[in-house]
Amino acid sequence: VRSSPTPELGDLARIVGPSNVLTDADVRAGYETDWTRRFRGCASAVVRPTTTEQTAAVVAWCSERGLAVVPQGGNTGLVAGGVPCGLSEGAVVLSLQRLQRLDAVDPLAAQVTAGAGVPLAVLQAHAGATGLDFGVDLAARDTATVGGMVATNAGGVRVLRHGAMRAQVVGVEAVFADGSVVSRLQGLVKDNTGYDLTGLLVGSEGTLGIVTAARLRLVPRLPDRLVVLVAIGSVEEALGVTARLRSSVDGLDAVEAVFGDGLSLVQRQLGLPSPFTASVDEAAVVLLVEWAGRGEPPAALLDVLDPYPSAAATEPAARAALWAYREGMADAIARVGIPHKLDVTLAPGRLAEFIRSVPDTIESVAPGAKAHLFGHLGDGNIHVNVTGAPVDDDSLDDAVLRLVAELGGSISAEHGIGRAKARWLHLTRSPEEIRAFRAIKTALDPNGILNPGVLFA
Amino acid sequence: VRSSPTPELGDLARIVGPSNVLTDADVRAGYETDWTRRFRGCASAVVRPTTTEQTAAVVAWCSERGLAVVPQGGNTGLVAGGVPCGLSEGAVVLSLQRLQRLDAVDPLAAQVTAGAGVPLAVLQAHAGATGLDFGVDLAARDTATVGGMVATNAGGVRVLRHGAMRAQVVGVEAVFADGSVVSRLQGLVKDNTGYDLTGLLVGSEGTLGIVTAARLRLVPRLPDRLVVLVAIGSVEEALGVTARLRSSVDGLDAVEAVFGDGLSLVQRQLGLPSPFTASVDEAAVVLLVEWAGRGEPPAALLDVLDPYPSAAATEPAARAALWAYREGMADAIARVGIPHKLDVTLAPGRLAEFIRSVPDTIESVAPGAKAHLFGHLGDGNIHVNVTGAPVDDDSLDDAVLRLVAELGGSISAEHGIGRAKARWLHLTRSPEEIRAFRAIKTALDPNGILNPGVLFA
Repeated sequence: VRSSPTPELGDLARIVGPSNVLTDADVRAGYETDWTRRFRGCASAVVRPTTTEQTAAVVAWCSERGLAVVPQGGNTGLVAGGVPCGLSEGAVVLSLQRLQRLDAVDPLAAQVTAGAGVPLAVLQAHAGATGLDFGVDLAARDTATVGGMVATNAGGVRVLRHGAMRAQVVGVEAVFADGSVVSRLQGLVKDNTGYDLTGLLVGSEGTLGIVTAARLRLVPRLPDRLVVLVAIGSVEEALGVTARLRSSVDGLDAVEAVFGDGLSLVQRQLGLPSPFTASVDEAAVVLLVEWAGRGEPPAALLDVLDPYPSAAATEPAARAALWAYREGMADAIARVGIPHKLDVTLAPGRLAEFIRSVPDTIESVAPGAKAHLFGHLGDGNIHVNVTGAPVDDDSLDDAVLRLVAELGGSISAEHGIGRAKARWLHLTRSPEEIRAFRAIKTALDPNGILNPGVLFA
Repeated sequence: VRSSPTPELGDLARIVGPSNVLTDADVRAGYETDWTRRFRGCASAVVRPTTTEQTAAVVAWCSERGLAVVPQGGNTGLVAGGVPCGLSEGAVVLSLQRLQRLDAVDPLAAQVTAGAGVPLAVLQAHAGATGLDFGVDLAARDTATVGGMVATNAGGVRVLRHGAMRAQVVGVEAVFADGSVVSRLQGLVKDNTGYDLTGLLVGSEGTLGIVTAARLRLVPRLPDRLVVLVAIGSVEEALGVTARLRSSVDGLDAVEAVFGDGLSLVQRQLGLPSPFTASVDEAAVVLLVEWAGRGEPPAALLDVLDPYPSAAATEPAARAALWAYREGMADAIARVGIPHKLDVTLAPGRLAEFIRSVPDTIESVAPGAKAHLFGHLGDGNIHVNVTGAPVDDDSLDDAVLRLVAELGGSISAEHGIGRAKARWLHLTRSPEEIRAFRAIKTALDPNGILNPGVLFA
């Protein structure tokens, strides 16, 4: 791979302009390394189109030459889905960050069309200016882009109420592997005319088509919020509380959880006081419950939580202070050591068993390692972070993911498969399912130029 | 086609039992004619499996022989998606009504697994017994089955709040064209491990796989309801009211509409009094708004509707009496004549233009014919029923669907494409989209045995 444009790459410069074909090694580096810094490779060039037409022309050009294309959004993914490494070494990285289309909000439809490169925070502010809100929120909001979030079916803390990205996407504009373009941006909520191409592209991690824009539904912006932190004695009881909240409380935004001694860890590492006024001993789970609506929170919420030690807040600063115990987990863990990060879903009925079993599973392959568990209890989505184990030893990940699979869970709740988890896909998907995936992949990308190495190892 | 079992069909009898291979013409007839009675054909046999294994064995048997298979649920579809006619003449009709699996409701997950043959009303009662509810409701609830509703992504009157079937389906069990089985019934709400096969099968109208069971999310059963009927002077104003309701009222279940003189038609044909105490002249739209929640309806709802003549009800019988003006439309129209039934979606911004234009469009191809318009205004989904035009003349349908396409709409909001609309698919889907559909179809059903003639004419 050369570090200066070859005559061939000059074709790309004619499509996107010379300043948008990056070949200098130093400039490429930021696009070649993933957010975790665990995965890096080498790109032939980084190409930065500004429009769908340019994107299509670049893909067509690559297609004619059989060149691999790695689409990249804000590069905040955790599974190496957007960097050129392994099977995509030497690919053209297609950075979509300059696709900055952002139409006026359609107030009649409560929808907006946004280009792939629009950061989530910009989308949120744009919706907010018209009294609406976007249904997905996550910590990487300033960097994560609409395109990347669509391609990975991003989740976050409000899936319980609004669903993940797939539930927000009314339609997409996308470029297929041959450079042809499909566009379904009219905002048709009910549309039973053929296969759900839009839903299929969402979460396909850039392997079936490259999303250049999305028509997104917006949700009402709710003025009143209540956050309650509660300490609960067992995982089973926390699951019961969660189910009762879901069936009796309208307007739940989030039910999050920190397990075991996670709360102490956050307090210790981040220098936070106990959130509870009463002394709380041996809580197996600290739940964070958020309600959003208009006016007073429903009495049922307080009724369900009444038996437990709790702390509550309605004002923004006080709510943020309670959220810090949950959102501080990743930071607190990072201060203990470089973690193995696993992101799994269990059905609620299997979750307690998983949480009981995971420490032994980890101990058996990495003696002395420590599991930190937290996540989105309302969705069954648990983040398993493990410190004190060798960083490059995959046997730990392997053991935990096998446990998840044995319990009928998903080995990737919201991060996707990318390149990092491709070798484990078979744990959670049957040969028949993987055969269907491959058939669909071959149907839409017969030469396999789109994001090779992602999903299929 | 013979009317008694051939030696070959004896193989099927060994799979499902002799009494579940129907070859007698009289017995077959009910499965060979669609609900509208417009479409009928002739099946080699009607086969009624009881389990997924039997279904898979039947499909494998047909696959080996290159025999077409037409899956059928409750046979309440309106687009000839489940009957053997045209390209599927002589096919094996696979009636899934005996797939009656219905697991206990999982209260922790608020989910249930139901076989393809379970009627919607049975599912609703089953969920109701545990204090939960199913998110989709429609008039054919006693006959429509889970499998058919999944296969057609059925909609109904509560899409505004809960989404259509695709939003309810957490996972499916399905039989592919070669008789292989995939199953994703664990109830994993967050699961980013490969392509969204579940979502792809939903709405694929039996052309990619045969859904034998589904894992379904349930929603809380809400005790309090308010229905308000309001008369509004223009379509534009009704759309503005709908948008204001959506952005300011939590808990909207439905925003339905009857346009023009539809209200008078229902009153006249069904012998109903005016719903309004005040005299209402020249309402362009009568909106039916339903709120569901706990306790008092929000003040914002009444504030938004306050300027308009209205009638409101909270008690079940009184609510049903108001719904009768909307739900009575189909019946009232049927008393005027046999209608052409079209089911389309327009983006809210194009809806007023469509409603203004459609009478002229109809007059130009069917002079003297009469358009009756009603539907789900909250979703942009309008049912266009036309009486006074020759029943078998497709030029009327053609003209209206072309108008929809010109305005960027969908030619099938909730009914699907089936065989009846296959020749118009190109109006609403680009060559690139249809090429992708065909590629996916070929990938999953290379010999084209699943429901030939559906989607692709």
